[in-house]
Amino acid sequence: VITPPKVFNSTTTLRVRYAETDQMAVVYYANYYVWMEVARVEFCEAVGVRYKTMEAEDGILLAVTESSCRHLTPARYDDTVIIETRLSDASPRAVTFEYMMTCEGRKVATGRTRHIFLNREFRPTRLPEKYRALFGMSA
Amino acid sequence: VITPPKVFNSTTTLRVRYAETDQMAVVYYANYYVWMEVARVEFCEAVGVRYKTMEAEDGILLAVTESSCRHLTPARYDDTVIIETRLSDASPRAVTFEYMMTCEGRKVATGRTRHIFLNREFRPTRLPEKYRALFGMSA
Amino acid sequence: VITPPKVFNSTTTLRVRYAETDQMAVVYYANYYVWMEVARVEFCEAVGVRYKTMEAEDGILLAVTESSCRHLTPARYDDTVIIETRLSDASPRAVTFEYMMTCEGRKVATGRTRHIFLNREFRPTRLPEKYRALFGMSA
Amino acid sequence: VITPPKVFNSTTTLRVRYAETDQMAVVYYANYYVWMEVARVEFCEAVGVRYKTMEAEDGILLAVTESSCRHLTPARYDDTVIIETRLSDASPRAVTFEYMMTCEGRKVATGRTRHIFLNREFRPTRLPEKYRALFGMSA
Repeated sequence: VITPPKVFNSTTTLRVRYAETDQMAVVYYANYYVWMEVARVEFCEAVGVRYKTMEAEDGILLAVTESSCRHLTPARYDDTVIIETRLSDASPRAVTFEYMMTCEGRKVATGRTRHIFLNREFRPTRLPEKYRALFGMSA
Repeated sequence: VITPPKVFNSTTTLRVRYAETDQMAVVYYANYYVWMEVARVEFCEAVGVRYKTMEAEDGILLAVTESSCRHLTPARYDDTVIIETRLSDASPRAVTFEYMMTCEGRKVATGRTRHIFLNREFRPTRLPEKYRALFGMSA
Repeated sequence: VITPPKVFNSTTTLRVRYAETDQMAVVYYANYYVWMEVARVEFCEAVGVRYKTMEAEDGILLAVTESSCRHLTPARYDDTVIIETRLSDASPRAVTFEYMMTCEGRKVATGRTRHIFLNREFRPTRLPEKYRALFGMSA
Repeated sequence: VITPPKVFNSTTTLRVRYAETDQMAVVYYANYYVWMEVARVEFCEAVGVRYKTMEAEDGILLAVTESSCRHLTPARYDDTVIIETRLSDASPRAVTFEYMMTCEGRKVATGRTRHIFLNREFRPTRLPEKYRALFGMSA
């Protein structure tokens, strides 16, 4: 049923905010997860899904069920961080995104988030058909 | 109509999180506003209003219309910060809170937030009567 | 001694992150101060000052002493927010920035932050001469 | 060389801040990692290590190299969250913490963070001997 779009990569560029640093003078580790959200939203747009619309009009929530990050080298204030995002797994019930973050060619972090689709009542639901092909699902 | 409860002070104690610092090794300035929120919720509880209930059951939102802070001396990681909160102005349409933050007797910051009451449709509304006396309004 | 550059406006464009919303489905009020930081850094760059360099190489910290915001209309998830920033007051000891935030022509918020220059020991200091003209100070 | 203190659990209690929610009306997923930091600091204190002192006086930084979380059920505004923390692995070069978060007996999330010790120059270093027994290392 599923044809994960292994090839496709969306690219997001971020600049590190002062607010995102901590007193170790590096980016506080929780903020990598905020960046993954920004990258995920841009991935969705790149395949033709505006997350805001999916949530507001179709009542589909993309709830995080698992998240992880390998923090390889520090990102610092004012760094330009590039995030490559791909969908590593997709079904009408759940999707998994993978992220690779670099800074001037240096690997900063890799991450992964797994999500299920919920309806407005917070019950697991299936992604509406109109969105499936966009996420690389065969039907 | 209004009898602002000038005397009453609620006290909130917080401990500075690592996440709240920035690379200057002090608390990032926006976080003082988060602390004011924590202090405000505890003030409400101290007078008998659980904000969560007011929002969920009565559909009353307390929207911030103005906020300000004087950042006097830095707060640092692991500091214990004490916040004294008082209601400096109160009417059925709007309330103003004032905050004094100290750390081991040293003044850290003073702040002020002004709020209006909104209904679920984001329209200005009047605070339900049952809450007014608690906020020191005469009726 | 001071010639505040009244005319100059720097423009910053931001897109609202999901992380920046709260359960009222609007941007949490403290996040406007994070945006002011982003806008301030871009203002500095626009006049030729890279804040990161000033801090790292010249040991000049720009510490916030006062901040305020009028929250006029809500910003929401995925909105594109435009921030116009100007320097409303500047001396070798302190500077004041003013911010106007709009979303599709609608005024979202206005803000103001006042800062003093500190050296690495957190003592008030004077902005090095090489930076003064850039901030519109006559000497 | 290592005797991981499998038994010991430190307990941290937190109350969900409004700032920590997002427009899904649940806690934004990155904030669980902030809570793990709070719990970790309290774990260290419970075994006799004040993280602030270790960093400021001994120049030992506890850098996160991996983090992960399983988000099981949502935490919501004003919920009281209890975090049980244990050290699941410890050597003079690296430590791993595990976290179990509950809310009124309901499992909210489990997490795990792995850290290495760095010196002030951000080089991997060994935890000073005086701290080793406290973290359950045999020498």
